[in-house]
Amino acid sequence: MKVTHYRETPARAVNIEGASGVKMRWLISQKEKAPNFVMRMFEIKEGGHTPLHSHSMEHEVFVLEGEGVLVYKDNEYPFSDGFAIFIPPDDMHQFKNTGKGLLRFLCMIPNEKS
Amino acid sequence: MKVTHYRETPARAVNIEGASGVKMRWLISQKEKAPNFVMRMFEIKEGGHTPLHSHSMEHEVFVLEGEGVLVYKDNEYPFSDGFAIFIPPDDMHQFKNTGKGLLRFLCMIPNEKS
Repeated sequence: MKVTHYRETPARAVNIEGASGVKMRWLISQKEKAPNFVMRMFEIKEGGHTPLHSHSMEHEVFVLEGEGVLVYKDNEYPFSDGFAIFIPPDDMHQFKNTGKGLLRFLCMIPNEKS
Repeated sequence: MKVTHYRETPARAVNIEGASGVKMRWLISQKEKAPNFVMRMFEIKEGGHTPLHSHSMEHEVFVLEGEGVLVYKDNEYPFSDGFAIFIPPDDMHQFKNTGKGLLRFLCMIPNEKS
């Protein structure tokens, strides 16, 4: 069991290729023995973005703060706080902060299949 | 794929035994073919609560608005917006709105095993 404010979990820089100004907090993870999926919080600086990439894990996203666009299959979809976003497995996607100030969202992914 | 503000998804009353003043929105569900887990938003009126119950699905919760307590194994854990909460499978739990105004949180659960 865990009941914790997100600020108690450190934000670490995401230094993968194609990422710019991105930090991530592991809010609920396999450390808590989450059996099926995990909860991360992303913080993207003004002008920053995640990589344009695809992978076998779906994303379930909820936007907490800021404004951005989802790049998805060569189109751009704007969003702001209060948006829920579902990205199916294997589809190309990228999150860009297009607003003033921080973009913050939750991103849940399934555990890797063992 | 889905990019939608939560207000576009209707809030429906949760009329199960032990629930009081609870509404739920299915933000990401099997309608979107979410392969592993789903995202719901709960809205609990001032003084309202979910049932005190247990089940085989874990909960991953993020609190968006308001104040409440988690009743968990005979203890109470206060929380407010910005808290992440993990409830393992099979543990007794209840969410109570103890603040002024609405309590709003996301609650993710795994898909039922077929």
